[in-house]
Amino acid sequence: MRKKNSKNKGETLRIVPLGGLGEIGKNMTVFEYGGDILIVDTGIMFPENDMLGIDYIIPDFQYLMDKRDQVKGIVITHGHEDHTGAIYHVLEAFNVPIYATPLTRGLLEVKLARAGAQKKARLQTVNAGDTVQIGKFKVEFCHVCHSIPDGVALGITTPAGLVVHTGDYKLDHTPVDNWPTDYAKLAEFAGRGVLALLADSTNADRPGWTPSERVIDPAFDKVFEEAEGRILVATFASLISRIQQVAEAAERHGRKMAFVGTSMRENAKMAIQLGYLKVSSDLVVPIDDALKMKPRDVVLMCTGSQGEPSSIMGRLAAGTNRQFDVIPGDTVVLSSHPIPGNEETVSRVINRLFQRGAKVIYDPIAAVHVSGHASQDEMVFMLNLVKPKYLVPVHGELRHLHQHAALAQQSAGLPAERIAVIENGQALEFRNGEMHLAERVPGGYVFVDGSGVGDIGPSVMREREALARDGFIFVNLKTDASSGRLLEEPEIITRGFVYLRDSEQLMAETRRQIEKVVARSNGNLQSELEHNLRNFLFEATRRRPMIFVVIN
Amino acid sequence: MRKKNSKNKGETLRIVPLGGLGEIGKNMTVFEYGGDILIVDTGIMFPENDMLGIDYIIPDFQYLMDKRDQVKGIVITHGHEDHTGAIYHVLEAFNVPIYATPLTRGLLEVKLARAGAQKKARLQTVNAGDTVQIGKFKVEFCHVCHSIPDGVALGITTPAGLVVHTGDYKLDHTPVDNWPTDYAKLAEFAGRGVLALLADSTNADRPGWTPSERVIDPAFDKVFEEAEGRILVATFASLISRIQQVAEAAERHGRKMAFVGTSMRENAKMAIQLGYLKVSSDLVVPIDDALKMKPRDVVLMCTGSQGEPSSIMGRLAAGTNRQFDVIPGDTVVLSSHPIPGNEETVSRVINRLFQRGAKVIYDPIAAVHVSGHASQDEMVFMLNLVKPKYLVPVHGELRHLHQHAALAQQSAGLPAERIAVIENGQALEFRNGEMHLAERVPGGYVFVDGSGVGDIGPSVMREREALARDGFIFVNLKTDASSGRLLEEPEIITRGFVYLRDSEQLMAETRRQIEKVVARSNGNLQSELEHNLRNFLFEATRRRPMIFVVIN
Repeated sequence: MRKKNSKNKGETLRIVPLGGLGEIGKNMTVFEYGGDILIVDTGIMFPENDMLGIDYIIPDFQYLMDKRDQVKGIVITHGHEDHTGAIYHVLEAFNVPIYATPLTRGLLEVKLARAGAQKKARLQTVNAGDTVQIGKFKVEFCHVCHSIPDGVALGITTPAGLVVHTGDYKLDHTPVDNWPTDYAKLAEFAGRGVLALLADSTNADRPGWTPSERVIDPAFDKVFEEAEGRILVATFASLISRIQQVAEAAERHGRKMAFVGTSMRENAKMAIQLGYLKVSSDLVVPIDDALKMKPRDVVLMCTGSQGEPSSIMGRLAAGTNRQFDVIPGDTVVLSSHPIPGNEETVSRVINRLFQRGAKVIYDPIAAVHVSGHASQDEMVFMLNLVKPKYLVPVHGELRHLHQHAALAQQSAGLPAERIAVIENGQALEFRNGEMHLAERVPGGYVFVDGSGVGDIGPSVMREREALARDGFIFVNLKTDASSGRLLEEPEIITRGFVYLRDSEQLMAETRRQIEKVVARSNGNLQSELEHNLRNFLFEATRRRPMIFVVIN
Repeated sequence: MRKKNSKNKGETLRIVPLGGLGEIGKNMTVFEYGGDILIVDTGIMFPENDMLGIDYIIPDFQYLMDKRDQVKGIVITHGHEDHTGAIYHVLEAFNVPIYATPLTRGLLEVKLARAGAQKKARLQTVNAGDTVQIGKFKVEFCHVCHSIPDGVALGITTPAGLVVHTGDYKLDHTPVDNWPTDYAKLAEFAGRGVLALLADSTNADRPGWTPSERVIDPAFDKVFEEAEGRILVATFASLISRIQQVAEAAERHGRKMAFVGTSMRENAKMAIQLGYLKVSSDLVVPIDDALKMKPRDVVLMCTGSQGEPSSIMGRLAAGTNRQFDVIPGDTVVLSSHPIPGNEETVSRVINRLFQRGAKVIYDPIAAVHVSGHASQDEMVFMLNLVKPKYLVPVHGELRHLHQHAALAQQSAGLPAERIAVIENGQALEFRNGEMHLAERVPGGYVFVDGSGVGDIGPSVMREREALARDGFIFVNLKTDASSGRLLEEPEIITRGFVYLRDSEQLMAETRRQIEKVVARSNGNLQSELEHNLRNFLFEATRRRPMIFVVIN
């Protein structure tokens, strides 16, 4: 792999991973060939704990804005937020056809409807096994298992060669929908010769083979057998196969099922209509009816497995849910893992549910969740099956990509120079069957806060950090224009710095300090005051509030 | 177990778990008998991610202030921060003798010296096996293994009976210091009859037996064999046995060792002097010398395994360490697990070290860390060995206590009514060999921020949250006293709300809005303006900054 600056020529395939935060090429990947551009996935990421006030994060695709008319289409590999969530923002920039399998399309429609944009979107349904020509890209859709049905890997052919993109996948031999990964298609790709494999690295530090989704069934059976009251199951609203498993357990144990929370209700309705969620007609009851039934006759399917305060489970833990409360005798199942960064919030929700008298079941107490991503042995199997010339580990933090690369060398015999561990924005070029590092484009992320997209950057974030740490103090002075003397006692406004009711003495001393500085000021009163107060307040409190002085 | 209000009579033993945050009875436990009070441990907790600006957290021991002269002594079970860190604050309130084993005492001295309080403290050295009378409490010290040497469980005898407190423990059969847990002493307690066991619940959701600290040695050997450049190992400065293991690996592989970071240097020096860290005289070299040696001849022992920005490892990851940088060829070993809530920060440090060209080794990539706490089988063994009448699960979040209780019922045959799952501040009373729930005292936590202890509460925290989310906008108006008209253009100060350089238009519109409201005001201009601006800015940005208006 040689570093080389080269212009984007007709015969060159360029691949640019974009995405947010630590993960690489997770949320968006760009393919460029012969003046045409194909976008794979348009996902969001959730802010880290120190990204104060940020609602969510989208990939920075600014570098595409200059070649907007080259974009020929968008392909979405599956219906999870981190692959679909930014669709509205991407559509605003490039209103091109969007290709997705039926369930993924259904989830996109629910999402676009909420943004009032479903009419604008040019959605095209594809099915696993289909081949679609999108500009100069021949895209083949290959079914893969994941923790949502109807996921696909992609075979993308241009004259530069065939590139396989796994999407998020696991090699589940007994998936809930009985539809295993299409090994034959992957082998067929291999037979044609695969130039490069872009492969999911999420679980690169997990040895072995990820358990089948089916291992959850016995754990659920045990929960249903033992529960004497209501059962509440929390999971992602998009985890359709998990909802299917809960529905089957409810059937087996003679309970009715109700969906709670807008996104859970909407997704379930759509998935039932499309036939991805198979439930007998009398299984599902409205929540109002469920709440009137005997506790041991119902299971409530809720959102909030990540402890989000505004979700059903978050509100139940806090005691702020309007329709119903968690009561002693309830069994709550958290059928999910905390997304990195959410561990604290999820722990707090579990503890509060216990406090309210519920029995809470969560992994590792019981196997009520498994990962949707391939582990090490599956990654090696994928390499052995697809036999790519080059490997580009994607979907994971830098550490996972390094681990995936080490695995490919140690267990699949791929030489180091055939593996590209790259970061978001680092373009790769394929020419004459060789891979080259090309230039780097801005590949970071863009904060979305309220209606602002990208207007919050490092400087506003630093201000929020300072305010969050020590608050501010604001001093309003009225002085006599000629003598410079104070006309009134200084007015002080402060927030986030000290508890005012207990700080009368500190405020009185601060006023005296201000008066002293005013009395002996020799010119620049504002900066003298700010400097003096900074030292005075730090001495008094060991805190550093932002200080503002206005002299009227 | 019956709920009963009763006065603290002579014959009653009261136990009150205190502590911080989610964990119960972790940081401090109070024993009261016959007018005497014994305090066990004085620890701190680190703030959760949404506790903005807080330095650390101490237990709320306010309820003891009225009976200050009853406090007879403080016993510290081992030298970790969450059991020692609040010693300075507790000493300020009760300057009574502090009992600790030699290494624990050494760590307390280092800590107290830094606060300038070592002369004030009345430290008493005890050794495992000793019995000390502290007021009406006979305290027996029983050696237990943990991830720090010289930890003890306590047997606390009063006429009400014998209570055993495990402290933090694991049942390691091959500990690094070859000093296993004192099973004979625990059995002897059982022989005398144990009224209640207060037992560590940290790992109550982990099946099996926690691996010995010794399992780390082969993992370190592999790292030392393969590393071609420097090795940097990060762990807690108090994890003396881990430092011992790294020193032994360095000896085996012919490297010199240097300590980096103040707390690492001070603790190592103290532990070498006391004989708890056994290193040959020529193994340790100053960091300056180490940096001049060939990379493959040194190992650097650093702080910062939790990714703290101010630690050595945090600074190395950020590229802001003064003395040296991480360079390609370095091998960095994170010999620790992230404390809950630190996962994101630790991941970021790992990714950045990879970015700088280091090879980073961490669990689960290699077994370079094991837990210092007992798992389920050890908990059951402890119950079977000590044979208490009552179990009080402590040291863990509510969910761990519940899990410990379930385990005690299922695997150790203890009936539910003999187990007290209680929260901090809930007093237990033992009278005539029976356990009763007594009243609840304030058992929460106290924020320490700068020099302020307890002055930051929910209202300041809410202000910081609001400022962190959307910042503030401050409007300064000069109006004509008689006509009420504006004398100057409104002055606007804002931070954390929008990026000012890109927001000229918004600010201009905001000024126009202010002028409109002033022109048509009919009385309370300030509240009219605040109300109007709140709506105007929310419409424009979907954000809710704090709004302040001052009219001069």
